[in-house]
Amino acid sequence: MKRTLFDSEHDQFRDTVRSFLTKEAVPHTADWEEAGEVSRDFWTAAADQGLVGFAAPEQYGGGGLRDFRFNAVLNEEVVRTGTVGDGFSLTNDIVLPYFLDIATPEQQGRWLPGIVSGETAIAIAMSEPGTGSDLRAIKSTATRVDGGWRLNGSKTFITRGIQADLIIVAARIPENDGGGFGLFVVSGDHEGFQRGRKLQKIGRKAQDTAELFFEDVLVAESDVLGEPGKGLRYMMGNLAQERLSMAVVAVAQAEYAVETAIAYGKERKAFGQPIGSFQANRFTLAELSTQVGIARVFVDRCIEAQNAGELTAAEAAGAKFWTTELEFNALDTCLQMHGGYGYMEEYDVARRWRDARVQRIYGGTNEIMREIVGRSLGL
Amino acid sequence: MKRTLFDSEHDQFRDTVRSFLTKEAVPHTADWEEAGEVSRDFWTAAADQGLVGFAAPEQYGGGGLRDFRFNAVLNEEVVRTGTVGDGFSLTNDIVLPYFLDIATPEQQGRWLPGIVSGETAIAIAMSEPGTGSDLRAIKSTATRVDGGWRLNGSKTFITRGIQADLIIVAARIPENDGGGFGLFVVSGDHEGFQRGRKLQKIGRKAQDTAELFFEDVLVAESDVLGEPGKGLRYMMGNLAQERLSMAVVAVAQAEYAVETAIAYGKERKAFGQPIGSFQANRFTLAELSTQVGIARVFVDRCIEAQNAGELTAAEAAGAKFWTTELEFNALDTCLQMHGGYGYMEEYDVARRWRDARVQRIYGGTNEIMREIVGRSLGL
Amino acid sequence: MKRTLFDSEHDQFRDTVRSFLTKEAVPHTADWEEAGEVSRDFWTAAADQGLVGFAAPEQYGGGGLRDFRFNAVLNEEVVRTGTVGDGFSLTNDIVLPYFLDIATPEQQGRWLPGIVSGETAIAIAMSEPGTGSDLRAIKSTATRVDGGWRLNGSKTFITRGIQADLIIVAARIPENDGGGFGLFVVSGDHEGFQRGRKLQKIGRKAQDTAELFFEDVLVAESDVLGEPGKGLRYMMGNLAQERLSMAVVAVAQAEYAVETAIAYGKERKAFGQPIGSFQANRFTLAELSTQVGIARVFVDRCIEAQNAGELTAAEAAGAKFWTTELEFNALDTCLQMHGGYGYMEEYDVARRWRDARVQRIYGGTNEIMREIVGRSLGL
Amino acid sequence: MKRTLFDSEHDQFRDTVRSFLTKEAVPHTADWEEAGEVSRDFWTAAADQGLVGFAAPEQYGGGGLRDFRFNAVLNEEVVRTGTVGDGFSLTNDIVLPYFLDIATPEQQGRWLPGIVSGETAIAIAMSEPGTGSDLRAIKSTATRVDGGWRLNGSKTFITRGIQADLIIVAARIPENDGGGFGLFVVSGDHEGFQRGRKLQKIGRKAQDTAELFFEDVLVAESDVLGEPGKGLRYMMGNLAQERLSMAVVAVAQAEYAVETAIAYGKERKAFGQPIGSFQANRFTLAELSTQVGIARVFVDRCIEAQNAGELTAAEAAGAKFWTTELEFNALDTCLQMHGGYGYMEEYDVARRWRDARVQRIYGGTNEIMREIVGRSLGL
Repeated sequence: MKRTLFDSEHDQFRDTVRSFLTKEAVPHTADWEEAGEVSRDFWTAAADQGLVGFAAPEQYGGGGLRDFRFNAVLNEEVVRTGTVGDGFSLTNDIVLPYFLDIATPEQQGRWLPGIVSGETAIAIAMSEPGTGSDLRAIKSTATRVDGGWRLNGSKTFITRGIQADLIIVAARIPENDGGGFGLFVVSGDHEGFQRGRKLQKIGRKAQDTAELFFEDVLVAESDVLGEPGKGLRYMMGNLAQERLSMAVVAVAQAEYAVETAIAYGKERKAFGQPIGSFQANRFTLAELSTQVGIARVFVDRCIEAQNAGELTAAEAAGAKFWTTELEFNALDTCLQMHGGYGYMEEYDVARRWRDARVQRIYGGTNEIMREIVGRSLGL
Repeated sequence: MKRTLFDSEHDQFRDTVRSFLTKEAVPHTADWEEAGEVSRDFWTAAADQGLVGFAAPEQYGGGGLRDFRFNAVLNEEVVRTGTVGDGFSLTNDIVLPYFLDIATPEQQGRWLPGIVSGETAIAIAMSEPGTGSDLRAIKSTATRVDGGWRLNGSKTFITRGIQADLIIVAARIPENDGGGFGLFVVSGDHEGFQRGRKLQKIGRKAQDTAELFFEDVLVAESDVLGEPGKGLRYMMGNLAQERLSMAVVAVAQAEYAVETAIAYGKERKAFGQPIGSFQANRFTLAELSTQVGIARVFVDRCIEAQNAGELTAAEAAGAKFWTTELEFNALDTCLQMHGGYGYMEEYDVARRWRDARVQRIYGGTNEIMREIVGRSLGL
Repeated sequence: MKRTLFDSEHDQFRDTVRSFLTKEAVPHTADWEEAGEVSRDFWTAAADQGLVGFAAPEQYGGGGLRDFRFNAVLNEEVVRTGTVGDGFSLTNDIVLPYFLDIATPEQQGRWLPGIVSGETAIAIAMSEPGTGSDLRAIKSTATRVDGGWRLNGSKTFITRGIQADLIIVAARIPENDGGGFGLFVVSGDHEGFQRGRKLQKIGRKAQDTAELFFEDVLVAESDVLGEPGKGLRYMMGNLAQERLSMAVVAVAQAEYAVETAIAYGKERKAFGQPIGSFQANRFTLAELSTQVGIARVFVDRCIEAQNAGELTAAEAAGAKFWTTELEFNALDTCLQMHGGYGYMEEYDVARRWRDARVQRIYGGTNEIMREIVGRSLGL
Repeated sequence: MKRTLFDSEHDQFRDTVRSFLTKEAVPHTADWEEAGEVSRDFWTAAADQGLVGFAAPEQYGGGGLRDFRFNAVLNEEVVRTGTVGDGFSLTNDIVLPYFLDIATPEQQGRWLPGIVSGETAIAIAMSEPGTGSDLRAIKSTATRVDGGWRLNGSKTFITRGIQADLIIVAARIPENDGGGFGLFVVSGDHEGFQRGRKLQKIGRKAQDTAELFFEDVLVAESDVLGEPGKGLRYMMGNLAQERLSMAVVAVAQAEYAVETAIAYGKERKAFGQPIGSFQANRFTLAELSTQVGIARVFVDRCIEAQNAGELTAAEAAGAKFWTTELEFNALDTCLQMHGGYGYMEEYDVARRWRDARVQRIYGGTNEIMREIVGRSLGL
């Protein structure tokens, strides 16, 4: 189905992104996987091209492009070229909105220029060893002290936890300090802040995921994001975009998987004929191709809704779980069609398959997504 | 997700349809099921409201509304009110286009006024006892005779086969008469034409489905539709709209099933709580509700594409199989949630469930749909 | 996989059953479906052959054959011949054990001879309009009166509710009469007992399913089964065998569906080849055939365990839900392969398909079965 | 369901295996994964315990235990302890039978003592870069030369390809040398034989999988296994046991996954309750637990059949595909329940998940398995 979402400026942006990634990311992917992180040089180069923080106002170096279609294009091309990982979506889709929407002008003046230039890596720390997707169970605490807050606790599964220069940390505020949750910005050199080891994951190996520890970290009043106590509301408010971002990635990945499987099915022969011509494979690919086409139309519609401020939490949750299940099925099928080769690290599909598995977990597990949708039905 | 497909004229049309069906169809549904057919009076009354053949040019009594959104509205309301069955979609979506697109002006003058007034019931006879979804295997033959064609053969599973006044019959033309397939219009009083018994089906009990027999039926040259020999092309050309029509019905039915299940889940209690509040049910309904929302967006996009003349055969086939599987799953789940009541004929969901089963079969089985999509991928 | 369950006496019993059903049931099936019940003559004829109540002691006319393999053989042959419905399993597998295990010798002397001779039709009434599978929610009450109990309430979905001469009715006993639930035997001529209309179902049309009403029905002390107050325990104790019985039916039905689909797939042609030779169909049937083979081995093992008194509630529940899902999938696939014919009442598979749907519901819905298994895991 | 398969000697064997693996394998697993192979010392130690080649006749140092129940016990314990990988099943279940069944007494005298002592590592090379599961497409050739055969070609995905001292190589024999396929035993020091690099896989990282190259390798007549030309028949004959072996592993792995998920579900809390107590999780585990129980009964029955020489190719193929799909689903569910932790290499379930993926591919892909079953149905 012809896409009707994009204007010519998005198409141009896509060209820019694709050629940049092809030149600056693809050749380094293997090294980054080996190193367990994307080089910092890459991010400043990407920022030079306007790919980092482009939604920020122009006065801070951004493009003022608060149009999720640009984010979508970028995510799609990251998937298409099969490189970089979550850095762009983390920065542009997930963390930046906090700085745009609830940071004060003073904070924006201090932080946005570095973020937009790619020099300041940003992250957000919600998950804790004991909580998973349950934000209300956060145990890290921030207690009021003279001139600010004292932060204690630990976080885990923090994407870009090793590189991040500024980390938004969600913490519980005791009742006698006002209650609720707050968002506190911690920089790498804060005393009492320590990063754990880089976590070894099944996939996403170029991504530096980490545990973070906060022991009596003092956060100045000027480094608190928004109103203390409203943290949960802020986080909930951004989750729809985070999940839409994941759905965009998922559909692009599923699309890539189906295309790859079709191409391989035409080329690879067994029992004297192209394996794609076996009816069982043809039906499987027809099924997946249809679903991917449907998912694409739906997610494009969600992007429109998000730009119009109309995407609901339940719609975003539905988009997230349905497309990430589809993504995994598509890659799993593609891998299976490759036979033994599909299990070899040197094959693209093998790496994408193990990388994709976490999409059903992070950003809120798909079980939590179903719970959110279910509750929106009044059940 | 807010629908963006319709204009105010479609909304008005929906109101008209809904109130008409509520008044003129709903009270008679049980009688029609008992009788095995919808009364002919109903169709003339519907035609009076402009619900029959509205795409026909105004000169023949139609509304000149060649806009599939009207067809979609009508189908959706038929599903919503749970009555009538396939008569509207058969007439407006499937058979009428032949009379609009390939009939001569003379034929249109002769036939369209009766069709549009609801007095002439129309049908199309493709399936044969030995063929199923394989049009190329049609064995009925039309051989050239002086002044026309001699038709022989039998057809089966013909929707409205008992009531139809004009039946488009697809038949094979022997090579020495030009080859290919032709479309021949047979009226109820043609000599040699006989209707078999009304077929007893698991569901769709108000629908008069029949076998038809043709023994040396003489069809005048003036009753041939389009060019003899091009029948297959004509039929293929109309199949996308037929399948889209089924997808519209399927999504509406699935939507109804989910709404019904949710409502029942809130009201019915077991083990001391509403059954919809059990997490397993909540998840199941969240899953279905999400899929129905996705299907709705996709089918609306297909309607746009169809109106723009851009809907491909593969897209229509994909829409048909995916939505009819969803429809059945939704109804099956809804029935299951009703427990023993779901198995009782007096419950709406029970009847819809057995009615829906054939959607995965007719209009081309869902296996054929996958084959069509698969081939469109070059496999 | 070769079955190792049966001895030669079971094989002989199978021959007896099969020839009896072929002669005495098959020719009457259509009439029974029309009438909404199996004729009473049939049951006395079946009893003459030793097919009713054979587990009862010889002194009461039974065969003393407390060996579930005989029950299994009978159920399998009922499925194989596609006739009769639930009467045998209801009588032999579900209701009879109450009379054998908790009836007093006096009661046995009064009731068993009639049951075993096929003259006394028996049923059990647990479900109520508001309860479904939740036995603890039973609202019918039995209050102590002079010389017995006064029964009030209503029941629904009672298999053989129209024909039954003796009905075991489960009712709640108020706390001041001892509490718990009791089982009370009501005969057709009890004052205050009324049968509702025969329920119209989607399938199982030869089965007389009914609502039952009890208004101040007096049950003599001598017609109470077992100890008042222990009814729940008695019912729970018999549920494993009831569910095993359903699993036996389900596997036999699934096996029949697969065989039928294979046979049809070899014979029916489309696009120039037997439809079973299309790989998509071949794979589907390979999948089902494998699952049916697996299910058969498992259910045979369950029968052994039941005979040894070792079958757990969770195993029986698991067997019930897994095999009845398989049964429905197998029939649904078989129907689909038949195309339009599969939707016609005259086709065996069509009737079996609509008949089978209730297996996922009665005897405790498959959701309840999963709940039982889940709790057995300590979750 | 209580297992009835084993005698006390199998139980004793299980104790031996478990304590040996716990002591000699578990502590080294991480090192082996790092090294990409299991140390050779381990195999001689295992052989000392009678765990290698125990089916070989006693005169060659074996135990004469041609009873697949011992093989099953060993495989189950390997899974239970989560270590070693495919070495035992490859040696005992897959390769050894060739040496026992078609080797001459002279060959047995030469080779079996080394195999049984664990000093001679054995492998079999069937798959080729272009063939996958299609044995008939093997392109390696063996042409007759003076005193033996000249072998040319390449193989891939060869388990234990790096360590193997004796490799059975399947090769095509040209028509003028007799045609068909032959099995040729190549040792590590054969001239012209080269091992490729150790293949990097998504999982099974302790397993040395390799490509092998044969360039004019001379195989003496005395190193040909069985009759040249009958290789395909020999391979087919052993495949049932290979697939049964995989099914044994799969069920054990699935069982482990379900147990692990249940245990984790009881311990881990979210939203204030153990996550296993959420109904959606409880139902999922109930479903899996039931299926695993069913699979266990079936595979035990297959082992009996194999010992009786009655297991058919189709039954083994069915067991292989059904249990390996179940295995993967069970591990995938277990991983999902672990949330982010399930994606971490340090978690056992994460490693088992990526390890298990290849079970659906090797030993003949699950698509080939369905093809085999489908053909056995005459389709």
